[in-house]
Amino acid sequence: MSEEKSAYTPIPSVQRLPVYLHFLKDLRRGGQRSISCTQIAKQFNQLSVQVRKDLAITGISGRPRVGYKVDELIDAIESFLGWDKETTAFLVGAGSLGSAILGYHGFNEHGLRILMAFDSDPKKIGTTVHGYPVFSPETMGIQAQRYRVDIGILTVPADQAQESANRLVEIGVRGIWNYTPRRLVLPENIVCVDVKLSASFAVLSKRLADSRGLDVAGEKPRDKSPGKSY
Amino acid sequence: MSEEKSAYTPIPSVQRLPVYLHFLKDLRRGGQRSISCTQIAKQFNQLSVQVRKDLAITGISGRPRVGYKVDELIDAIESFLGWDKETTAFLVGAGSLGSAILGYHGFNEHGLRILMAFDSDPKKIGTTVHGYPVFSPETMGIQAQRYRVDIGILTVPADQAQESANRLVEIGVRGIWNYTPRRLVLPENIVCVDVKLSASFAVLSKRLADSRGLDVAGEKPRDKSPGKSY
Repeated sequence: MSEEKSAYTPIPSVQRLPVYLHFLKDLRRGGQRSISCTQIAKQFNQLSVQVRKDLAITGISGRPRVGYKVDELIDAIESFLGWDKETTAFLVGAGSLGSAILGYHGFNEHGLRILMAFDSDPKKIGTTVHGYPVFSPETMGIQAQRYRVDIGILTVPADQAQESANRLVEIGVRGIWNYTPRRLVLPENIVCVDVKLSASFAVLSKRLADSRGLDVAGEKPRDKSPGKSY
Repeated sequence: MSEEKSAYTPIPSVQRLPVYLHFLKDLRRGGQRSISCTQIAKQFNQLSVQVRKDLAITGISGRPRVGYKVDELIDAIESFLGWDKETTAFLVGAGSLGSAILGYHGFNEHGLRILMAFDSDPKKIGTTVHGYPVFSPETMGIQAQRYRVDIGILTVPADQAQESANRLVEIGVRGIWNYTPRRLVLPENIVCVDVKLSASFAVLSKRLADSRGLDVAGEKPRDKSPGKSY
């Protein structure tokens, strides 16, 4: 393992871990006890050496012939990602996107626990959305004194993004999961991850335009193998 | 411009274009007619040379002293991304995430036009969600004969992802915008872009765990400057 264990954490490997985890949990439910890199690689149409490197960042290494124990691999990935610990969150912006996140429970099994939602719309304040109470943003400081809150999930309209982010920083969150199209200006010690739905749509549109032969700039598509996922 | 115009389209540059576009449209609304790379770079805390390279992939080049005309730059980006053309879509899966996308109109200005939604839940079939009619997935083929549909937006539960994708391919879409956590197996000619919300949450969790000093694998964080966005 020593040559695989690097001194830094490559982001693309981190991004692939949830996909492996999902697959491994399916296997476990089906009663499978061990698995090889080659089998995982085959499932995802990737190189076996890439899968081995991705998994090695969690500190786990497979054994010759045996491969990995499914249980150990699941634990290693969850522990590496911090998904064995609870991450508490305030959701700011209970519009359509915010409501969708409140109604989606897929992140619960990764330790995410949304505590409550905030919205400046007087019609929403005092109501619940998917069982979560909605409060005025003005009360955020008071609520933060009652609960330990790790992150803010930012789902407000773009023009309220920075102001809402500032408020989250003030109440002491350590991270922001930013669903708005705005790039936030934040103190150095705040972890921020942008979801960038527009960036995703840009890649899709560009690749469609290329495949239509409508590439206005007259350039060749970068990658001749469509079907590849980004 | 010649040395900047490369033979391929770098994905990170494509992903940054929507952010510039958003900013440029704000400027135009404010009456500004021209802008330099340096000004854009300053706004986004990036290197000027990086901004110039990003914009150059659209085929546009700034003029010394003048910079770019805001109007021309907006047109160049939109045309490069195919956002000056209409992209029609079927949305498959009218659950909470699907409904959020139906209710969000931010992609309209990028040419996205959702035609209708499909859901296998008998309670939803025949109703409308945010004004969009919901049909049974069985009728997808018939609907596709009546409308030209470019892409499928996939917001079904994970275990229905591949089956729904197969159906979309059958009715002739050229691209899939995949919001499910599954990696899809698709024909070579289908463009697929994954939104990967779990991957995004994995990066956030890992960086929070690192900043907590709870890095179980005992590795050093990759990047000592938190606050950086991914």
